Amino acid sequence: MPSSPIRKLATYADQAKARGRSVLHFNIGQPDIETPKISTEILKNYQDPIVAYGPSQGLPEYIDALVGYYRQHNILLKNQEILVTVGGSEAIVMGLTVCLDPGDEVLIPEPFYANYNGFAVTAGVKIRPITTRLEDDWQLPEVQEIEKQIGSKTKAIMICNPNNPTGKVYGRDELEKIIFLAKKHNIFLFSDEVYREFIFSGDKHVSLLDFEDAKEHVVVMDSISKRFSSCGSRIGTFISRNKKVMQAALSFAQARLCPPTISQMMAIPFTTLDKKYFVDILSEYKKRRDLVVSQLKKIEGLQFNVPGGAFYIIVKLPVRDAEKFATWLLTDFHINNETIMLAPANGFYNTKGLGEDEVRFAFVLDCDKTKRAMVIFKQGLYHYINTIGH
Amino acid sequence: MPSSPIRKLATYADQAKARGRSVLHFNIGQPDIETPKISTEILKNYQDPIVAYGPSQGLPEYIDALVGYYRQHNILLKNQEILVTVGGSEAIVMGLTVCLDPGDEVLIPEPFYANYNGFAVTAGVKIRPITTRLEDDWQLPEVQEIEKQIGSKTKAIMICNPNNPTGKVYGRDELEKIIFLAKKHNIFLFSDEVYREFIFSGDKHVSLLDFEDAKEHVVVMDSISKRFSSCGSRIGTFISRNKKVMQAALSFAQARLCPPTISQMMAIPFTTLDKKYFVDILSEYKKRRDLVVSQLKKIEGLQFNVPGGAFYIIVKLPVRDAEKFATWLLTDFHINNETIMLAPANGFYNTKGLGEDEVRFAFVLDCDKTKRAMVIFKQGLYHYINTIGH
Repeated sequence: MPSSPIRKLATYADQAKARGRSVLHFNIGQPDIETPKISTEILKNYQDPIVAYGPSQGLPEYIDALVGYYRQHNILLKNQEILVTVGGSEAIVMGLTVCLDPGDEVLIPEPFYANYNGFAVTAGVKIRPITTRLEDDWQLPEVQEIEKQIGSKTKAIMICNPNNPTGKVYGRDELEKIIFLAKKHNIFLFSDEVYREFIFSGDKHVSLLDFEDAKEHVVVMDSISKRFSSCGSRIGTFISRNKKVMQAALSFAQARLCPPTISQMMAIPFTTLDKKYFVDILSEYKKRRDLVVSQLKKIEGLQFNVPGGAFYIIVKLPVRDAEKFATWLLTDFHINNETIMLAPANGFYNTKGLGEDEVRFAFVLDCDKTKRAMVIFKQGLYHYINTIGH
Repeated sequence: MPSSPIRKLATYADQAKARGRSVLHFNIGQPDIETPKISTEILKNYQDPIVAYGPSQGLPEYIDALVGYYRQHNILLKNQEILVTVGGSEAIVMGLTVCLDPGDEVLIPEPFYANYNGFAVTAGVKIRPITTRLEDDWQLPEVQEIEKQIGSKTKAIMICNPNNPTGKVYGRDELEKIIFLAKKHNIFLFSDEVYREFIFSGDKHVSLLDFEDAKEHVVVMDSISKRFSSCGSRIGTFISRNKKVMQAALSFAQARLCPPTISQMMAIPFTTLDKKYFVDILSEYKKRRDLVVSQLKKIEGLQFNVPGGAFYIIVKLPVRDAEKFATWLLTDFHINNETIMLAPANGFYNTKGLGEDEVRFAFVLDCDKTKRAMVIFKQGLYHYINTIGH
C-alpha cells in the first residue's frame, strides 16, 4: 500500500515542531471551522445509562433525519436506501467490497483522493486511472477515451464530486458521460459527494442520485466530516436505490455490528441546521479560496485552475520534484519561525511520473494564516529556485 | 456471507413485539450493566470546539493509558505496539488483512463467534474450522489433530479466550499447543481477548502476550465493549510486538483516518478504574451463570458444560432443529405475554450439520429476568416437545 501524500511528510513536520517551529497545515483537509454547538450540546445532555449497540443500519432516528436532509436537496430517499457508516471511509470500502469481487477493477479519474488506494487494497480490487489534466481544467475525457479503459474486469466507475484534490465540480454533461457508460456496460457508478455543499458559484450540486434512470447503478458515499467540521466523529452514509446492493451492504454492516452510537446522536441536529450555516461557511471558504488564488496569480511560473468546489487546489510548480520542495519547506525554510506543510501531488496519481511537479493546498485555515502561508510559499519558492535550483 | 445467528431471528422478535409481546434477549451479548459514570461524565465536560481527526494510531493519551492498563495485568507494552481500532471488529479485520493474502486460510476452533465469517469475507480469506466438542468440554484437540488442518495456505490460527460462544477458558497447556504449531509452521496466532476479565474461577487470564518466545507470531485483539459495557463506543485495540505487522497495520489505519475521537476520550478513565469495579461485575455475572446452570440442571435431556468465562453457554437440546424451536418461542410461545430469544448454534459452526440441536444463551440480563427466562425456556421446551415433537 503506498503511503498517503497527506501524511508522508509528517515526520519532517514533527521534527520542525520539535525545533520550536510553527507549521501551518495546508496539507490536510482538517477544517478549522467550529463544530456547530448544537451538536456538542448533545453531549452535555447525554442521559442513557448504557452506551449500547445501535442497529447495524444506523440509529433509526438518524436515518429518518437523513431522509429529511436529502429531501431538502430534492433527493427523495426511503429509509432502507440509507446505511450509516463509520465515516465516508467505510462507505467506500463497503461499495468496493459489496459491488466488486477480489481482482475486479474500478475506474477513477486521477488525480484522486489518495486513501482510495488503501480502500482498494482492503477490498482486494484494482484501481485503473482515467487521467484528467490541469490543462483541460480537470474535465473528464470524452466518452470514447474513458470507454477504452473499460475491460472485462471493470465493475465500477468512481468519482468524487466536487473533487478532492482538484476542486473540479462535475456538471450534468460530464455525469451523463459516465451514466451512458455505466448503462452500456452494466457497471456501477460510485459518487463520493462529501463536498456537495462546497460549490463557490452558488450553483446547485448535481448528485448522481438526481438521475432516476441510473438508479440501479448508483451508490453515493457521503460524510458529515467536512460539511459539519466533525472529522473525528467518523459518521458517513452509504446510499443506493439498488435493493440487492443494500441487502449485501447490510450483511457487511452486521458483521461490524454498528457505527458509533454517540457520534450518530451528535449528527442528528446537523440535518435540520438553518441554511444560514452553509451560507456563512461557504462565504468563509470562498474568501480563503479567493485569497489563495489571488496570491498564486502574483507568483511567476505557476499553473493552476480556479477550483469550483471543495477546499483544495492543485498547483504546478516550476520545480522538477515538488515533494523535495515540500520537504525542504519543513526542513530548511521559515519566516519568523513559521513554515507551511503542503501535500506533494504525485501521491494523488496512479500513473507513475504524473504530478511530480505539483502540490495540493487545502485552504482550511483562516484568512490571517492563509495570508502568512502564501507569503511563506512565495518567498520559499523563490529562495528554493535561486539557491537549490529546479 | 452467511447471516448472523445472533440477528437472523430478529424479524420474528420484531413481529412478536409488534403483537405487544415482551422479548427477553438472551441471543445477543449486549450487557445490561451500566457504563461506568466516569466515562459518560467526560461528555458533560467536553470542551473542544472542533471534533477533529485524531492520529490514525489512536489518541496518544489513550494509548499511554492502555499501556498502563496492560501493565496492571503484567503485560508490558510499548506505545508503538498498540493501535486503537473501531471496535474489536476492525482489529480482527485488520489482522486478517495485514497478515494474510486473499485466498489464504486461518484455522479457528469451532463453534466460533459468527461474525468471524463476515470479517473473513471482507478480508478475502478462508476459515478452516478445528472442531471442538461439548463432550470434550470444548477443549482444543491434540496437537497432531490440529496440525492435520495446516496446509500451504494456512497463515494463522485464531482463538477467542475466554471463548464466545462456549464460555471455555483456554489455559497455559492449551495455548502451548498452538504456540508450538505457530513456531513450527511459522504462522501467526490471533487471540481475541475481549472477555479477558470474565473468568469465574478467579484464576488469572493467560494472554498470548504472556509468552515472550512467541512474540513475533502473536496479535491480540481487544475491546472495551463488554468489559466496560460500552458496545456503542466502537473502541477496540490491535496489539503486536511484531514490528512489520504494526507497520502494515498502521498503513491500513491511515487509509481510514482515525477511530472516533470522543469515544476514545470516554475510554481513557476505564484504564484506571478501581479493581472493585471488576470484582462487582464478575460477581454479578457469576450469579447469573450459576442461576442459568442451576435451572438447566433441573431440565431433563439437556447437555452443556459449566462455562468458565465470558457470558455465554451452549446447550444441546432434545430437539432435532434448535433453530425451529428458537423461532417457535418467538412466534408461538409466551408466559404472561413474555418470551425469550435465543441464538441457534448452527451458525457458530463452519462444518455443515454441526450444532443443529444446540442454542447459545447470553446471560447478560439481571437475575429477575434470567429467572423468568429460564421458566419460559423450560416450559416452552416441554410444550414444544409434547405438542410439536422433536
